[in-house]
Amino acid sequence: MKKISYLNGQFLEHQNCLVHIEDRGFQFADGAYEVTLYQNKQLIDGKNHLLRLMQSLKELNIEHNFTVEELTLIQQQLFAQNNFTNGICYLQITRGSAVSRIASCPKNLTPTIVATVSEITPIAKHQFNEGFKVITSPDIRWLRCDIKTVNLLASTITNQKAKDLGFDDAIFIYDNIITEATFANVFIVNQQNQLITHPANQHILCGITRNRLIKIAKEQGFEVLERTFDYPQLISAKEVFLTSSSLLIRPIYKINDVIFNAKKDFSVAKLLIEKYNIFIDSHFS
Amino acid sequence: MKKISYLNGQFLEHQNCLVHIEDRGFQFADGAYEVTLYQNKQLIDGKNHLLRLMQSLKELNIEHNFTVEELTLIQQQLFAQNNFTNGICYLQITRGSAVSRIASCPKNLTPTIVATVSEITPIAKHQFNEGFKVITSPDIRWLRCDIKTVNLLASTITNQKAKDLGFDDAIFIYDNIITEATFANVFIVNQQNQLITHPANQHILCGITRNRLIKIAKEQGFEVLERTFDYPQLISAKEVFLTSSSLLIRPIYKINDVIFNAKKDFSVAKLLIEKYNIFIDSHFS
Repeated sequence: MKKISYLNGQFLEHQNCLVHIEDRGFQFADGAYEVTLYQNKQLIDGKNHLLRLMQSLKELNIEHNFTVEELTLIQQQLFAQNNFTNGICYLQITRGSAVSRIASCPKNLTPTIVATVSEITPIAKHQFNEGFKVITSPDIRWLRCDIKTVNLLASTITNQKAKDLGFDDAIFIYDNIITEATFANVFIVNQQNQLITHPANQHILCGITRNRLIKIAKEQGFEVLERTFDYPQLISAKEVFLTSSSLLIRPIYKINDVIFNAKKDFSVAKLLIEKYNIFIDSHFS
Repeated sequence: MKKISYLNGQFLEHQNCLVHIEDRGFQFADGAYEVTLYQNKQLIDGKNHLLRLMQSLKELNIEHNFTVEELTLIQQQLFAQNNFTNGICYLQITRGSAVSRIASCPKNLTPTIVATVSEITPIAKHQFNEGFKVITSPDIRWLRCDIKTVNLLASTITNQKAKDLGFDDAIFIYDNIITEATFANVFIVNQQNQLITHPANQHILCGITRNRLIKIAKEQGFEVLERTFDYPQLISAKEVFLTSSSLLIRPIYKINDVIFNAKKDFSVAKLLIEKYNIFIDSHFS
């Protein structure tokens, strides 16, 4: 069965989904996106993803008439057309195609909307127990990381740099502060068992899974502090883990050449992923 | 006559130039570009633009087989096909389309190459004499502005912000230092008649026209300093001007609410544009 994707109102064979070379997304990274997990035919935290997309489009002054209801339906229909029970949906909206390339942001364009679905391999139990390793790297991203845009070149080349060095991901450091990973938020559990993650400001994307896990952790009695932390705090943490909507929780045992969690004690990460899976299941009740 | 553009080896009607939605340029701003001026059927500083493009692709580890000679020919043929005598050529190369969206940079893709030509209206003498006005704005761009990539969202939304406020452009300030304008370099002429422009490092694109004008200014006996300067130096300058390959020189008389050059004395800018035009003419001798 051929993969179907969604483009500007139509469900088409994936290979036939094309945008014009004047699309602002292609020339200026002038667009926003979301990646939403789909489990047992349900979008996980789907509304929160779309509310954030609406916020991204507003921040970029991208004019559109999309509603959360309509975008939810498109994603659900797309999974159904592809006969998926589980997966992720990638949804991207750009400012659209201008008549010709101009430096400013033209008004009254028809936005381009694209959605694709993909299979996703959840992190297996043995992979989780094995843990992951990351490098740290200067945070060279732009200073509006709070908007989920396709202006992603810094993240993708830094992610590749980590892979080339045999690591799983990179954690960004801006002005001595740990901000986030290339496509995930960073949490530490300090020696007092407090969870700490970077506050939601222009230096990080305020992750939907981040927010959900903060809520879950608090329900479990953890103190969660949204405040900055630095490299010494990172490598002296009891636990470090990355969170994102597609990878959920990735526990880290090694940072650069420092094996800070040699025993691979991922107790807090494990508790949280268990509770998160209960949250996922709650979508079907 | 319908506009012709170039896409992956073919000259096509512009409206038919489409790229796949999985193109890394569309999803990650994962590509580089150049804009080259064309005057009297000659590419101006064409080779230097292409050498910079090669450097950008190398910095991004985008694999390709393009040569300067081949890319020169494509641009010349495109102008010929569109029956242009003058204009600009926009040339963009992305990493290409991956099978599906992944966070790292996949190897062995076939890069996407796009070229379009446009008419350009040169700055008329009365516009030049009238001068231009700019705002200053925080430099929120990523920290590899030395690579000419399509990771341009900060520049385009800041350019629009300037337009919305009734100004012509914005000059970025990073850590109290003037870096560049949204798509142009910034020069000042101080009270000692020295030309100062930001050094070529990761905070600015090292403009082809910037470099050419530095050479021309030195030939004219000016001392040219590639060093940083701040806002107080900017607004106490005798002259401020912006340079780019398409707009050449734009003299500034007003910055935010400060009319620092009320007499619109653009003597140095005028001398340089005269000499630059002689340089352009030298292409046809």
